[in-house]
Amino acid sequence: MTIEIINTGSELLSGSVLNTHQQWLCNKLFQLGYRVSRQITTSDTAEDIKTAVLDSINRADVIITTGGLGPTSDDRTRDVIAEIFGRKLIYDENVAEQIKNYFALRKRHQPESTKIQAYVPECATVLQNQFGTAPGIVIEAMVKASHQPRKVLLIMLPGPPRELYPMFENQVIPLLKEKVPPPYFVSKIIKTTGIGESKVEEIVGEKLKPCEKNGLILGYCARVGEVDLRLEAFGNDAHKIVNQAEQIIRESIGEYIYGEGNQTLEAVIVEILKKKGLTVSFAESCTGGFVSHRITNVPGASEVFWGGIVSYANDAKMKVLGVKEESLNKFGAVSEQVAKEMADGLRKLAKTDFAVSLTGIAGPSGGSPEKPVGTVYIGLSCKNGTVAKRNFNPYDRLTFKQVTSQQAFELLRRELLKIS
Amino acid sequence: MTIEIINTGSELLSGSVLNTHQQWLCNKLFQLGYRVSRQITTSDTAEDIKTAVLDSINRADVIITTGGLGPTSDDRTRDVIAEIFGRKLIYDENVAEQIKNYFALRKRHQPESTKIQAYVPECATVLQNQFGTAPGIVIEAMVKASHQPRKVLLIMLPGPPRELYPMFENQVIPLLKEKVPPPYFVSKIIKTTGIGESKVEEIVGEKLKPCEKNGLILGYCARVGEVDLRLEAFGNDAHKIVNQAEQIIRESIGEYIYGEGNQTLEAVIVEILKKKGLTVSFAESCTGGFVSHRITNVPGASEVFWGGIVSYANDAKMKVLGVKEESLNKFGAVSEQVAKEMADGLRKLAKTDFAVSLTGIAGPSGGSPEKPVGTVYIGLSCKNGTVAKRNFNPYDRLTFKQVTSQQAFELLRRELLKIS
Repeated sequence: MTIEIINTGSELLSGSVLNTHQQWLCNKLFQLGYRVSRQITTSDTAEDIKTAVLDSINRADVIITTGGLGPTSDDRTRDVIAEIFGRKLIYDENVAEQIKNYFALRKRHQPESTKIQAYVPECATVLQNQFGTAPGIVIEAMVKASHQPRKVLLIMLPGPPRELYPMFENQVIPLLKEKVPPPYFVSKIIKTTGIGESKVEEIVGEKLKPCEKNGLILGYCARVGEVDLRLEAFGNDAHKIVNQAEQIIRESIGEYIYGEGNQTLEAVIVEILKKKGLTVSFAESCTGGFVSHRITNVPGASEVFWGGIVSYANDAKMKVLGVKEESLNKFGAVSEQVAKEMADGLRKLAKTDFAVSLTGIAGPSGGSPEKPVGTVYIGLSCKNGTVAKRNFNPYDRLTFKQVTSQQAFELLRRELLKIS
Repeated sequence: MTIEIINTGSELLSGSVLNTHQQWLCNKLFQLGYRVSRQITTSDTAEDIKTAVLDSINRADVIITTGGLGPTSDDRTRDVIAEIFGRKLIYDENVAEQIKNYFALRKRHQPESTKIQAYVPECATVLQNQFGTAPGIVIEAMVKASHQPRKVLLIMLPGPPRELYPMFENQVIPLLKEKVPPPYFVSKIIKTTGIGESKVEEIVGEKLKPCEKNGLILGYCARVGEVDLRLEAFGNDAHKIVNQAEQIIRESIGEYIYGEGNQTLEAVIVEILKKKGLTVSFAESCTGGFVSHRITNVPGASEVFWGGIVSYANDAKMKVLGVKEESLNKFGAVSEQVAKEMADGLRKLAKTDFAVSLTGIAGPSGGSPEKPVGTVYIGLSCKNGTVAKRNFNPYDRLTFKQVTSQQAFELLRRELLKIS
C-alpha cells in the first residue's frame, strides 16, 4: 500500500513559504505505521494540480492533498479533483451552516466568497473544519490507472496548519485505520548530539551489519547539532531485531545519546529537571532568547524554568546580571570571564540550581583574528562551581543559534546526569 | 524551460526532519527569475531515487537534487544518476585531495568511508564543497525522454545546509545563468499583517481584475499572523502592470502593509528604529524569549535592542521588572495591569524608548472560563504613556508564540509610525 502527499501552493514553489505540512503529515503517518513513498509540491494552477494528481493516481493507493480549498480565486484543488473523478459539485446545507456559524461565533462579517466553500463533490465524505471555513473532502473511487482497476482514496485537506492538524488527528486518522489498516512494524529513532554523522557510522556501522542481514533497516540523519539513527524492521521478529540493534548502539556511543523518537533535547532537559526537582535559568547574549524560547516550547517548562535574561547590550549584562565593567573592558564581552560572571550573576538573582550563560559572536560582523565570527563561550554555574567552555560555530545567524543552544543544553544535560 | 527539485532522504518522508531545502532553493531560483514547476521528495533507496529522476527527466530541463552524496551506506544519489546516464564513476585526485585537506585543516581523523566521495561520474563537472566532504556534481546530457532528443542539466547537491547554501550561491547560480538564462519578468511580494486572507481578497479582488486582464498573475498566501500578496508579470509591460496593481493595493489596505519581498516584520522594526534613532526592549512571559529571538535574527539588531527579560516565573516579574505582588494576586499574571507594570518596569530598567511586554496563557493547560487558553495581554510603554491590549490566540504552543509576537511587533510598528 503506497501513500503520496501532494502539497499545492505556488508560495511553496516560489519559496516565500516553508513547507511544514510535509514533515507534520509524514511524521503522523510514520508513527501510525504508514510509509509515505513520495511527496510532491505543485503550483496553484488547475493544470499543474491535475497533472500531479493524475501522476499520483498511477502510483499510489492513498493520496493526501493540502491546500487549494480556500475561498480565493487561486484555490483550485476541489474543482480539479472533482473533475478528474467526474463528480459534480453539490451545495451542502450542513457545510453552509457551519461556515455561517464560524463567522457568527467570532462576531465577524462573512465575506461573500466563503459561501463557495459549501459546494462539495457528490458522493464525497465531508470532514468538518472546526477552525476555519474550508471543509476537508474524501473521495473513494475505482481507477483504471495502470493495468487493472484499483481503489484509490483521495483525501483533500485545507492548507492552514491550525485547520489541517485537528482535522487530520480527529477525522483522517480514524478513517485511514478503517479503510487501509497499517502493517505490523517496529521503528525507533535514537537521538545523539555532540558527535558527527561519519563518526557515528565509523563506530557502529560494522557492528550493525549482522542486524541488517536479519532485516534491520538502518538510516542515519545529520541535523543541526545532532545525528539521528533510525532503526526499522517488519514482521514477527521486528521487536527483537530493533532491540538488538539499539543495544549495540547504546553500548558503543551511549554517552552521546540524549533521547528517542520525537524527543527534543530541551524536552529531555525539562524531564530530568522535573524528576530531580531542580531549576534552571538562562543568560543569553548571542543567542538572543533562542535558548529560553526552546525550553518554553516544552509544555510544563514553568515548573523548572525561572526565566531568562537576554543581555544583549553590555548595559544589560552589568545592570541585571552584575557583570563587572572592568571584566568587559579587560576581557571583552565574549570571554570566559564574562560568561562565568553572567552565569554566576544570574544564579544569584534567580536562585535557580543551575544558570547557563551564552556569549559569542553570531556574525556576520563583529569578529577579530583572535575571536573570529562563530566564537562562543558557554558558562554553567551551580553549587559545585562555575565553568565556561569555548566553542567555534562559524555558521549563518540562525544555524549559529541552533548549534550553540544545542551545546548549552548538552553541557547542562551532562552536568545533570552527574547528580543522583 | 522547466525546473524540478528532487529532495532525497527517508528522514524527510518519515517526518523526522523538516524539508528546509525546498524553500531555500525555490526562493533563490525565484529571485533569479526561474520558476520551479515541481518539487518531489523521495526515500533514500536506489529504486525510489531512480524512479523519481526518470520521471523528472520526462518533464524538466533542469533537475536539482539534494542529499544522498554523503559517505554513509544510505547515500545513493550519485551512483543511481551515474547509472541512469551510463557514466562510469572515476577516481578524482583533486576531490580526494580536498577531502583529505578538509579533515587535516580541522585536525580531525579522516574516516575511511569519506574516501568513496572522491569517485565522480565521468564527464561531469565537479562543484567544490568548502564546508564538507561531498562534492557537488553536474551532468549535462541529451535525453530521448518524450518524443524528441532534449538537453537536460542535472545538478546534484549535498544535503547539509551549510554545504549546500554556499555551493549553490557561488557555483550553481553562475552555471545556471550561463547555461539557461532566465526570462524577463517582474515580481513583487507585498506583506501584510493584522488582516485575514478572505478580507484582503474582498477588498482588493475586484479592483485588481483589470490588471489581471492585462497579464497580472496574482496570488494570496496566508501565513501565521500575516498574508502575502504576490504580483507577477512577464514581458515588456511587466513593470507597469505590477506597479499599477501595487498602487491599487496600497490605496486599499495600506495601513496593513508592513513590507515587501522577503522582509520580515522584525527586520522592518529594526530598520525604523535605526532610522529614528530609537531603542526597544522586551519583557516576555508566555512567548518565552521568542520575540527577542526574532529581533536578534536581524543582523545589526544590537544598535536598537537593549535586551529582553524572559520573566517566566512570577518571581522574575517582581524581582527584575518590579511588578507588584499585589497586582499579581489581585489581577493575576495574565492581566492588563501586570502587562502594563511589566512594560513600565522594563522601560525604567533598560532606559529604552520603547518597552513591550507579553503575558498570556500559551496552553495546553492553565486556562479558566474568564481567561481561556490563548488569552494574552500585550503592553507597550513609551514616553507618551502605557497601553495594554487583550488578544485571543487559541492555537498550539508554537503558533501561539508566532501570532502573539507578530501582534506585539505590529503594535510597536504602528506606534513608531506616529513618531516623525
